[in-house]
Amino acid sequence: MSAPLNAAPEAAPAPRPPLEFWFDFGSNYSYLSALRIEAAAARLGVPVRWQPFLLGPIFRSFGWETSPFVLQKAKGAYVWRDMARACRKAGLPWQQPSVFPRAALLAHRVALLGADEAWIGAFCRRVFSLNFAEDRDLEAPETVAGVLAELGLDPAALLAAATADANRQKLRQQTEAAATRGIFGAPTFFVGEEMFWGNDRLDDALEAWVAQGS
Amino acid sequence: MSAPLNAAPEAAPAPRPPLEFWFDFGSNYSYLSALRIEAAAARLGVPVRWQPFLLGPIFRSFGWETSPFVLQKAKGAYVWRDMARACRKAGLPWQQPSVFPRAALLAHRVALLGADEAWIGAFCRRVFSLNFAEDRDLEAPETVAGVLAELGLDPAALLAAATADANRQKLRQQTEAAATRGIFGAPTFFVGEEMFWGNDRLDDALEAWVAQGS
Repeated sequence: MSAPLNAAPEAAPAPRPPLEFWFDFGSNYSYLSALRIEAAAARLGVPVRWQPFLLGPIFRSFGWETSPFVLQKAKGAYVWRDMARACRKAGLPWQQPSVFPRAALLAHRVALLGADEAWIGAFCRRVFSLNFAEDRDLEAPETVAGVLAELGLDPAALLAAATADANRQKLRQQTEAAATRGIFGAPTFFVGEEMFWGNDRLDDALEAWVAQGS
Repeated sequence: MSAPLNAAPEAAPAPRPPLEFWFDFGSNYSYLSALRIEAAAARLGVPVRWQPFLLGPIFRSFGWETSPFVLQKAKGAYVWRDMARACRKAGLPWQQPSVFPRAALLAHRVALLGADEAWIGAFCRRVFSLNFAEDRDLEAPETVAGVLAELGLDPAALLAAATADANRQKLRQQTEAAATRGIFGAPTFFVGEEMFWGNDRLDDALEAWVAQGS
């Protein structure tokens, strides 16, 4: 049986926007999410977009010079205990960074450059692990180049593109977009305009993405 | 077969300290824990001690005049969205309070007075529900008296004892103890000296209590 001549072909449903994962490489709770998000999302068939941004300017816009985990001593002391327990529960290695929050500007630029590339998850997991499992400095270009080389990529070409003016400007715009969206910490997830804050809400965000399609 | 005459009788194991639940009636995330803690603990055989304290003096010790959910506008906007979702998930009624954080000094004094009484759980659940499900003022003595009357208790005698100097002083000491223990928010749970912060950690705290005994 053929369709009537004047029938429109059945339109494929428009692809739904992916779940957005906003993170900063210096954020300890982002580490917990980064190391599990791709596997957890794949189990549920949820596409993920990695959204690196800089928390520092967000905190400064609140009048804070650094992380609230540094500014609030009681909360800071608790957070490291909580992280040790959370990593044990998740089966992740954990070493409290000797520098916190650790700057990683170049790594953010590379992650933004590669946000739609197949290597983005592996790159981010490795950078997060250097910070929170190996207590390694992240600022030296050699460190970031080393991660790219491990992944079989071309470090020289990627670092050149990552540090080009256009990509620097793009990271500034990305951080401004985070502020505009109401982001106040990391990790933060978006399902459409619905915001979920914290590694403790990753599973809720994944479920919300699935539920919105049903 | 009889025991040798010089054998000590087998000592009963010392009772283990209960899991401690530190809360403030103005704390929205404490509402989520208060409404479920007794049932969740009973399922696992975990004894619970209700530990009312005042968050206001803790926040003031950090230099904050009020709740961080008021001081930080982006986080505050998120928190009400998060609460609506969390209550729906937990099957709890929810109405955003028109006054936040809501003062409830008398209710805290009554809760401290009754912390070891059989009615403590029912009393606290009712006070929390007035705040977060019915948007009711908690400061009028008639409101607190009404809750006690609903529970078949003697409001006049209990309010007199709650507002006596000894109990006022006890609440001040309780709040100082919270600060000394490193409490920076609510709800906070203790299993021995191990601290768990937030409704999101209640299940971890219950599991830790069980694990410490095995």
